[in-house]
Amino acid sequence: MRSLPRLPLDRPLSGARYSAVELSDAGDAVYLLDQRRLPGEVVYLEARSAAEVARAIRDMVVRGAPAIGVAAAYGVALARREGGLDAALDELASARPTAVNLRWAVARVGAVARRGSLEETREEARALHREDVAACRAMGALGAELLPPRARVLTHCNAGALATGGYGTALGVVRAAWASGRLSHVLADETRPYLQGARLTAWELHEDGVPVELLTDGMAGHFFARGEIDAVIVGADRIAASGDVANKIGTYGLAVLARAHEVPFYVAAPWSTVDLATARGAEIVIEERASDEVTVISGVRVAPEGVRARHPGFDVTPARLVTALVTERGVVRAPDAASLSALALTGARPT
Amino acid sequence: MRSLPRLPLDRPLSGARYSAVELSDAGDAVYLLDQRRLPGEVVYLEARSAAEVARAIRDMVVRGAPAIGVAAAYGVALARREGGLDAALDELASARPTAVNLRWAVARVGAVARRGSLEETREEARALHREDVAACRAMGALGAELLPPRARVLTHCNAGALATGGYGTALGVVRAAWASGRLSHVLADETRPYLQGARLTAWELHEDGVPVELLTDGMAGHFFARGEIDAVIVGADRIAASGDVANKIGTYGLAVLARAHEVPFYVAAPWSTVDLATARGAEIVIEERASDEVTVISGVRVAPEGVRARHPGFDVTPARLVTALVTERGVVRAPDAASLSALALTGARPT
Repeated sequence: MRSLPRLPLDRPLSGARYSAVELSDAGDAVYLLDQRRLPGEVVYLEARSAAEVARAIRDMVVRGAPAIGVAAAYGVALARREGGLDAALDELASARPTAVNLRWAVARVGAVARRGSLEETREEARALHREDVAACRAMGALGAELLPPRARVLTHCNAGALATGGYGTALGVVRAAWASGRLSHVLADETRPYLQGARLTAWELHEDGVPVELLTDGMAGHFFARGEIDAVIVGADRIAASGDVANKIGTYGLAVLARAHEVPFYVAAPWSTVDLATARGAEIVIEERASDEVTVISGVRVAPEGVRARHPGFDVTPARLVTALVTERGVVRAPDAASLSALALTGARPT
Repeated sequence: MRSLPRLPLDRPLSGARYSAVELSDAGDAVYLLDQRRLPGEVVYLEARSAAEVARAIRDMVVRGAPAIGVAAAYGVALARREGGLDAALDELASARPTAVNLRWAVARVGAVARRGSLEETREEARALHREDVAACRAMGALGAELLPPRARVLTHCNAGALATGGYGTALGVVRAAWASGRLSHVLADETRPYLQGARLTAWELHEDGVPVELLTDGMAGHFFARGEIDAVIVGADRIAASGDVANKIGTYGLAVLARAHEVPFYVAAPWSTVDLATARGAEIVIEERASDEVTVISGVRVAPEGVRARHPGFDVTPARLVTALVTERGVVRAPDAASLSALALTGARPT
């Protein structure tokens, strides 16, 4: 895939100077910011086929469930003008095993590709992208109202513009709070082992001029104890019907600390993250990933040969520790099965 | 300083195949395991003057307050046969700003150097080393009795053989539990930013055949929630008269998690760590260290240029979260000002 030093678009749908994913104006290429190379290098890869988009998803060029969904939607648009649509849809849908948004996006845009024109397929993919950004902006506006003036916000991992079509979920709340003058600064956990906080969250907030300071994952307790954190805001990988939240490893520990210090703990996630088919968090299988992803940092082995690291990719925060869930459909305080099923029935969408 | 691939001693006082610090049999050289190069390389530096020992302390070849004290004691023994004893003692005592043990060790062995022979000075330094190891073994025996059978123990940073004259404080408890068949395995926090857990704790336990698995600092909550941790054992940098414990950043968060999951939280530290002149933890000034120590890992910058990291070196765990304090003088359950001042009066030493 060709590398580009900047996004060759005048008006990216992300609404920012950078994007995780965009479709070219001519509709014949997908631009993907290579997140593996941040923060050192800003490089966009140009995918010109559905297979190249699928490979970029597999290879973690793009990550974050909503951003993967947008990338796959554009991949379907590229597939529409190639032969073998069904095979291309299968390859895109299976590029990552667990992302619910990925299969949903492929199914939605794939249905248009099967019955409609190339131009209609491109427009459906762009519509999905626009809706994702709109959902983030809706969450941002709703979430920012929960914060006190001059809020000092702790976040974990990257639930930002880079993880979505643009603007971000947890970082959407941060951006809205910053725009309305409610934010003092962000404390960002570096988020080992992948360092998404150091590499991605710090990068995108710094790009946008939002004050951010980095912490190692063990520092949060100290700053809670000092009264230097007014709220925690994180994203979610999956939310059970009970309101239990699966998110990046380390989230649960922050929720326990927040409760111990009477600091609100907010989860910002699109409604599509709520999985009503999963009753409780205990049903969510936590994948144990490779030890080397912990013991080797930037190519340097930091632990002795022969020592194994544990590596659960995420953890589960019980609903009782969640002060409020922020979705584009509305804010659910003290989420539980009753409040989530009530919101499921409204089906409201952001305007 | 000359580098040696192994310790050129038949019977190191540490009691192990490796040592943080030893005096040569002839008493004319100090061997220091270069902890900056672990776990990749095992290299001993040979210091042949008090100035070289002071430099090794300053340059972090050796770390851990008790190990620094032993190194300085041997440095005094080298100074005894050089000219300018007073200047050498000053240089050794000021090699690191905060270590209480350092000044205590220099004063104790320095007094013998001033009035006694070279051989008496060497023997005093060796006695200090032997007493440090004996204190660790006493703590180990007392602490191991607190653990349930097949204990799964979480530790943080390195409070091990490498931080002491040998055997370790928190890891002394681990070793004693392993020797008596009470230990299943250790979970070791990698302990960012310096990665002492990954580099040092994992190395020394692996060397000694004690089962150890590495965690990133954000993973503990997950394993607490799963019921996979039976006890937390950490060391201490300083303990206030109230029983509040200053230790490596990240310790306090573990104490909060332990309490939330009703898991005992133990602190193992020599009595010399208790600072009765400091009434409460709130009086302990937490040094904020350099941002680059967080943002650069193994020479690779992981955060964007222009983004600053916070870097408190340690945090304070209030006494109410400490299940028991293990010292060579005895075990203090639910430590507080009354129980610590009672123990101060006993003055008992290990046999």
